[in-house]
Amino acid sequence: MQSPLIQELIEAFRVLPGVGPKSAQRMAYHLLERNKSGGLLLSQALSKAVEEVGHCSLCRTLTEEETCSICQSARRATGELCIVESPADVGVIEQSGIFQGQYFVLMGHLSPIDGIGPKQIGLDLLESRLSDGSVSELIIATNPTVEGEATAHYIQQMAIKQGVVVSRLAQGIPMGGELEYLDSGTLSQAFLARRSM
Amino acid sequence: MQSPLIQELIEAFRVLPGVGPKSAQRMAYHLLERNKSGGLLLSQALSKAVEEVGHCSLCRTLTEEETCSICQSARRATGELCIVESPADVGVIEQSGIFQGQYFVLMGHLSPIDGIGPKQIGLDLLESRLSDGSVSELIIATNPTVEGEATAHYIQQMAIKQGVVVSRLAQGIPMGGELEYLDSGTLSQAFLARRSM
Ligand SMILES: [Zn+2]
Ligand SMILES: [Zn+2]
Repeated sequence: MQSPLIQELIEAFRVLPGVGPKSAQRMAYHLLERNKSGGLLLSQALSKAVEEVGHCSLCRTLTEEETCSICQSARRATGELCIVESPADVGVIEQSGIFQGQYFVLMGHLSPIDGIGPKQIGLDLLESRLSDGSVSELIIATNPTVEGEATAHYIQQMAIKQGVVVSRLAQGIPMGGELEYLDSGTLSQAFLARRSM
Repeated sequence: MQSPLIQELIEAFRVLPGVGPKSAQRMAYHLLERNKSGGLLLSQALSKAVEEVGHCSLCRTLTEEETCSICQSARRATGELCIVESPADVGVIEQSGIFQGQYFVLMGHLSPIDGIGPKQIGLDLLESRLSDGSVSELIIATNPTVEGEATAHYIQQMAIKQGVVVSRLAQGIPMGGELEYLDSGTLSQAFLARRSM
């Protein structure tokens, strides 16, 4: 008995993480009853981002340009390269203000069971970057989970082979926690107390 | 340092109820990293619904047609007219299966302090409907809040003037609760035990 367009909209909202049938319904009604212009802006922002945002050719983070603003900045070419799993991790490290170098974004972690090997997380690109002599220190900031640790170990071996100093964020990150949800203080601690590996 | 398009998308997600900066960011990254096609479908469903969904000319609920499917159905012309505050309330009553009549959707409640009087919630339309003799019983299912009760009282007076029997959902609805979040059982109870007023 529900309007088909509203039903489709409610189902479409289910693609969002953490949105079940009840919240999807609330979202649809909220926009249609009270904020159609906000709904239209969201629709436009979404289609524009989906169509134009791709990956930085240097660090693999999400960007609508060929290379992201951090990779473009000469100020950031300090020789320190921080490895993270996701663009959200870049965001939280940038917020803390503790790190001035560049990033390499894996867009995931090694997960052989899901068919995600070194190539899928861009480690061929990382290896050629390590071999060109521009990286003086590799700071590994993958999540302290089983997969994140395995990925860190793999990258560490790669860096050792290339003769690049490697360190890993350590102190302050709770086991099993996710970088994305850390506060800036804890994260700054983890940067300052990073241990070589 | 964030991509402008991603930043705009994150801000756009804030129009959704219950979505703060952190969840907005998670939603944006989730779609861009893992489900671009889902994001595009959401964008399309949203613009289509925003552009085409309006109000039923008979009951005021949200619909993309001139009149909604319930108002169109001859089976539903039982003479019972249920007054609710929102389209979501129609949904939850329909789910319970307890009610076979038609609805009138206020799209809000009386709230003089916000400039919402009888006209803003369509009571002129309701009054002309009550006067045409098609309604044998008015079942008021506004929320059991202060504003919902005041609105119920106003409509009750209107119905009495028109000589239409009025009842109000009563038993089982917790004070201060919102109809939209009730389970079907409680709601069915409230229908069966409705008291005349
Ligand atoms: Zn980049
Ligand atoms: Zn209708």
